[in-house]
Amino acid sequence: MRNLEPVKVTHTAPRLSGLATDLYQLTMAAGYHANGRHERASFEMFIRRLPENRSYLVVAGLEQALSYLNNLNFNEEEIEYLRRLPVFAHVSREFFDYLSEFRFSGEVWAMPEGTLAFPGEPLLRVTAPLIEAQIVETFLLSTINFQTMIATKAARIVEAAQGRGVIEFGARRAHGMGAGIYAARAAFIGGCIGTSNVEAGYLFDLPVYGTAGHSWTLAFEKEMDAFRAYHQVFPESTTLLLDTYDTLQAARLATEFGLQLRGVRLDSGDIGALAKQVRAILDEAGMTETRILASNDLDEYKIAELLAAAAPVDLFGVGTELSTSRDAPALGGVYKLVEVEFPDRIEPKMKLSREKATYPYRKQVWRNLDSEGKFAGDIIAMASETDHRGEPLLKPVMREGQLLEAPPTLNQVQQYSKQQLAGLPLRYKTIRDAETYPVRFSDGLFQQRMQLMKQLEQG
Amino acid sequence: MRNLEPVKVTHTAPRLSGLATDLYQLTMAAGYHANGRHERASFEMFIRRLPENRSYLVVAGLEQALSYLNNLNFNEEEIEYLRRLPVFAHVSREFFDYLSEFRFSGEVWAMPEGTLAFPGEPLLRVTAPLIEAQIVETFLLSTINFQTMIATKAARIVEAAQGRGVIEFGARRAHGMGAGIYAARAAFIGGCIGTSNVEAGYLFDLPVYGTAGHSWTLAFEKEMDAFRAYHQVFPESTTLLLDTYDTLQAARLATEFGLQLRGVRLDSGDIGALAKQVRAILDEAGMTETRILASNDLDEYKIAELLAAAAPVDLFGVGTELSTSRDAPALGGVYKLVEVEFPDRIEPKMKLSREKATYPYRKQVWRNLDSEGKFAGDIIAMASETDHRGEPLLKPVMREGQLLEAPPTLNQVQQYSKQQLAGLPLRYKTIRDAETYPVRFSDGLFQQRMQLMKQLEQG
Repeated sequence: MRNLEPVKVTHTAPRLSGLATDLYQLTMAAGYHANGRHERASFEMFIRRLPENRSYLVVAGLEQALSYLNNLNFNEEEIEYLRRLPVFAHVSREFFDYLSEFRFSGEVWAMPEGTLAFPGEPLLRVTAPLIEAQIVETFLLSTINFQTMIATKAARIVEAAQGRGVIEFGARRAHGMGAGIYAARAAFIGGCIGTSNVEAGYLFDLPVYGTAGHSWTLAFEKEMDAFRAYHQVFPESTTLLLDTYDTLQAARLATEFGLQLRGVRLDSGDIGALAKQVRAILDEAGMTETRILASNDLDEYKIAELLAAAAPVDLFGVGTELSTSRDAPALGGVYKLVEVEFPDRIEPKMKLSREKATYPYRKQVWRNLDSEGKFAGDIIAMASETDHRGEPLLKPVMREGQLLEAPPTLNQVQQYSKQQLAGLPLRYKTIRDAETYPVRFSDGLFQQRMQLMKQLEQG
Repeated sequence: MRNLEPVKVTHTAPRLSGLATDLYQLTMAAGYHANGRHERASFEMFIRRLPENRSYLVVAGLEQALSYLNNLNFNEEEIEYLRRLPVFAHVSREFFDYLSEFRFSGEVWAMPEGTLAFPGEPLLRVTAPLIEAQIVETFLLSTINFQTMIATKAARIVEAAQGRGVIEFGARRAHGMGAGIYAARAAFIGGCIGTSNVEAGYLFDLPVYGTAGHSWTLAFEKEMDAFRAYHQVFPESTTLLLDTYDTLQAARLATEFGLQLRGVRLDSGDIGALAKQVRAILDEAGMTETRILASNDLDEYKIAELLAAAAPVDLFGVGTELSTSRDAPALGGVYKLVEVEFPDRIEPKMKLSREKATYPYRKQVWRNLDSEGKFAGDIIAMASETDHRGEPLLKPVMREGQLLEAPPTLNQVQQYSKQQLAGLPLRYKTIRDAETYPVRFSDGLFQQRMQLMKQLEQG
């Protein structure tokens, strides 16, 4: 018998590393290095198309993205690993020396977390020496794609809950514990009141919530023994789980605790019907303050149905559907080269490939408000066009690899995201059949792009 | 300007911690502690139903699960955090002292990674003092649900590729970098030949693969300059990306490199048609050994179509669909109490709730082979029933919190998973309309359960 060493594979997930990227970023880096290509380049991250059932995005993940840029490096063992890869057999020692001193020294503009964004709009722009801007692509995409996807799903669910609290319950179905922790963070940005994930609560100072599981009830001979034992340890914060054996019978047992009982939870069966019956049992016992929490594969559609049917549910625990964004579990953000700065000129860059063509030039997004202060439409313009009206959504957040200011607290981010959602007219945010929010490219950008396309096609 | 401190929020993900669980596991733990409930209990993890489009599961994630159990503890700061949570206001100091010395001391039986499993079959069984077995639920589920889901998706894609190599390319769309790293591991178990994820390659000793990105081509004035520059740095391992501007034109440029060119990559457009045209261009130049790699939102269905249409693709790079298991992005594994050992008796446990009822007793799964050595059907029996034929799939892997043997290498696991898949008759593993593999509960277990149900319903 032996112990597993506390291996380099940690468990919630591996440590930060310069290797946390796709191999081609590092081969391209070696290629740029060998060719003396140290020009500053600008890359922008954007989403080509909204996923199914989505009409807006709630931007999230920027704090982790910036923290990554701020701390990124390669240690000796990692560099040794790269040197031994066959693909690097002909790459010179100078490149690995370069990596050993690698720090991100670039500039970043980004939409603050909680901003509402739409397809085609840059969420983030990196301007840095080519190699630096290239290596960071994979991590930035992975982090911002994921958290933005979850914050967006959370916002839809919270919208459907019409003011009732939504708690993130999905750690066990998230894509590993690391994903669960960041899902809890992003869900809070999207408007959830908290999470069942204790590690997320600890790391991000989020409110944590819990009830008891079925195993608690099963561990006692009688259901009532289990209820009493739990209530004794948690006199002020007991939420009894009712559906281990028979929900209505359990609800009747719960009336013994009277006004002291904080809540009950329904986790199976016909939640709408059960909630009404359980509410009646509780109310009859004078327990009008005892709240009903519902869970069991809930999503925005089921919550909307429950509330449309006047189900007396006070709190929703949402797991799988939220922590995996199950109906749209991938956000296709991309990160594309838009400009290269040569000593004598700035070259705009774009891809022509048919369904994946891009827009050249560094950009800014301008949001216009109508007379009531609601969002009326966005314009994507070249950053050099400064004569647009409205609010510029991309803000400078990092210069020379240094953060320009401390990131906001998650409470501030959540507040901001609520303001943003309040600003979006209802027709653009209904959970079904929402209209498309108007976003257009500026005339200047459109013309410059046409010109560049012609050049490239003749090229 | 300031730096972000290298905060406790790490980037690929947080460190291992006893807090990496749902709050209710810790409140139940406090409850068991307060009630002196230190009996040994057995919990089993199983999947109730297969996700859409799946007909088997490839078990994965056990190594991380065991490493977690083996290293789990609570540090002082974490305990202090818990003590300050309002929910624990009335919990005694003794419980926190208990946590400060917490180590997992239990026994674990599990299906080895790479085993094929089916609904209802325990993948893992934990027998430990109630508190220990309870706290670990969330992490075990999250880890094994995720990696099993990805290994299963990978196996389907690899099956569709009919012997052509499949490379995992999905880090940028995975649910954060931590998820991407474990997705690469699980994809290898499911039969992928490697990954683009360098960190996963480094941590798990997996083959890493890469080509070049569109940004490389864009960074040079002429496409040919970009191709030449790359080939010079990677003379033996260049795969040129052809679709930045015009794929066929790029293919003609690629012929300049002749036999030296390892491969070309198609990443947009009609892959089937382009592959044929590009193959013709390469063959005409005598480059019959230059391989064609295809990517762009591929999955098992698209790969099967391409090969049915005789598309001359040699390698598939599969990203989003694989790293998120996009068509079935959550695996609903659960972890249920099945027995509690009291000094004088063993009490079987089961839930009655309608669509979520469970089977009591510690179990074993027996796999029967037909005369050709193919899988003929599984029986789920009580562990105490030792008279079944076939291979018992659950093996002892941990006793008194100690691993019984070192985990196999990932190459061994991949070999085992290939053997398992070869053992499953074709009708149970076609990517569409597969038949349901026969799994039944033993007569003994069925009868014992009926008896217990009666008792509980009367109770």
